[in-house]
Amino acid sequence: MKILVCNDDGIEAPGIHTLADTLKQIAEITVVAPIKEQSGVGHGITMQNPLRVIKYNNNGSFFGYAVSGTPADCVKMGVRNIMTDLPDLVVSGINKGSNTAINIIYSGTVSAAREAAIMGIPAMAISVTSYDTLDYSYAAKVTKMLALKMKSGNLPRGTLLNVNVPNLSEDQIKGIRLTTQGKSKWDDTYEMRIDPYGRSYYWLTGNLKDIDTDLDSDQVAVKNGFVSVSPIHFDLTDYSTFEEMKNWNIGKLMDE
Amino acid sequence: MKILVCNDDGIEAPGIHTLADTLKQIAEITVVAPIKEQSGVGHGITMQNPLRVIKYNNNGSFFGYAVSGTPADCVKMGVRNIMTDLPDLVVSGINKGSNTAINIIYSGTVSAAREAAIMGIPAMAISVTSYDTLDYSYAAKVTKMLALKMKSGNLPRGTLLNVNVPNLSEDQIKGIRLTTQGKSKWDDTYEMRIDPYGRSYYWLTGNLKDIDTDLDSDQVAVKNGFVSVSPIHFDLTDYSTFEEMKNWNIGKLMDE
Repeated sequence: MKILVCNDDGIEAPGIHTLADTLKQIAEITVVAPIKEQSGVGHGITMQNPLRVIKYNNNGSFFGYAVSGTPADCVKMGVRNIMTDLPDLVVSGINKGSNTAINIIYSGTVSAAREAAIMGIPAMAISVTSYDTLDYSYAAKVTKMLALKMKSGNLPRGTLLNVNVPNLSEDQIKGIRLTTQGKSKWDDTYEMRIDPYGRSYYWLTGNLKDIDTDLDSDQVAVKNGFVSVSPIHFDLTDYSTFEEMKNWNIGKLMDE
Repeated sequence: MKILVCNDDGIEAPGIHTLADTLKQIAEITVVAPIKEQSGVGHGITMQNPLRVIKYNNNGSFFGYAVSGTPADCVKMGVRNIMTDLPDLVVSGINKGSNTAINIIYSGTVSAAREAAIMGIPAMAISVTSYDTLDYSYAAKVTKMLALKMKSGNLPRGTLLNVNVPNLSEDQIKGIRLTTQGKSKWDDTYEMRIDPYGRSYYWLTGNLKDIDTDLDSDQVAVKNGFVSVSPIHFDLTDYSTFEEMKNWNIGKLMDE
């Protein structure tokens, strides 16, 4: 099995090192990750500037490639220009901080896996739900298990798994749950500050409004000590509204 | 009616000027747009750095705000810190170049409208399908018509319209079609070049593989001279796979 490993916290982040070390046990791995942290970049790709690619040696534990772009750039570069064969799987993570509910939209970690899914490659994003000191070993173990499960090709083309693991020790984990994307979203604002030259600048700040209650939601599952596994895709069409909008007679609207 | 106008081509782009001038006929407008072009940034938001906001005067035709961030940042900033009341509608565009099929994922234009939809505000993204010299006036007319139609509140919370207009004169337009997101995607690669110092760098390049054939697809509709209107949302859950995955017995996988 050939696995392309990526993340959004950058190639120096401990999460990707634990992930690479664990996946080496079951696959030939290629690490292609951003030079710098790329949290919140969403599904950005670099078109206005060229990219640089730098060889990276993690003290002999693995050799990888650091890219001067986004997580999605790294997957494109890894698949198109670095790997000689198509990978059997792309794994993005292990991210520091959860990627549940609306955060999926903003997440570079999830977007890297989604870029692979767009190319028709099985893919998984994996995150641990804390910004504090983390032990990534259980999340890596879950990833390995899911990678072996996905090897049997039981996910449709274009569907990826978004996995979130609570920041608990293995014996405290309640189990693994199949989930959907939660509906919680940010109640955010900008905090204005004044720079030393008297000019204003603004920091994004806020809280995730926890509006999910169903244990089928990724957000609630993780909060209650479960590993959350959600199948997600990139077809954004709202089919039920598509059906309802047939009543609009949209073809005649400009004549009204 | 109060409309927040945004784009991803930057506040100096002609598309947003035509849009603002047209929407002024039916609403009080507030323009909040990126200082610099932000094509391909996807749904990125700025968290690692603060933002700057600069007042912008388009020769007295409108006053706006230029933000040192992404299109999604502009919508957050406009709604949270600039406008005193919630807008009734957010319109993003008029983009130079289509946002159909897989390009919806990469698009800053669509992401700005999607950020509004996340906040529960009706929203629309509008693009013209060409990079050549463009006349945005027909697209602006379509936007005005749809804005009036959306005013009656007939779209569910969280659903936005993604509108693409062929680069044709009004009499050449075949009509308006309700569409879904097409499946066409990029066959892309990186072109390696050598800089004056002997180091390699890589430009993303490629072609959109046109695999859609159904006139219900955004990509095909526009190619055939129709204005394409797709309802899209931000729930990425793949519900049919969610149902199928119940057979995985995911709760037991770690015991295997």
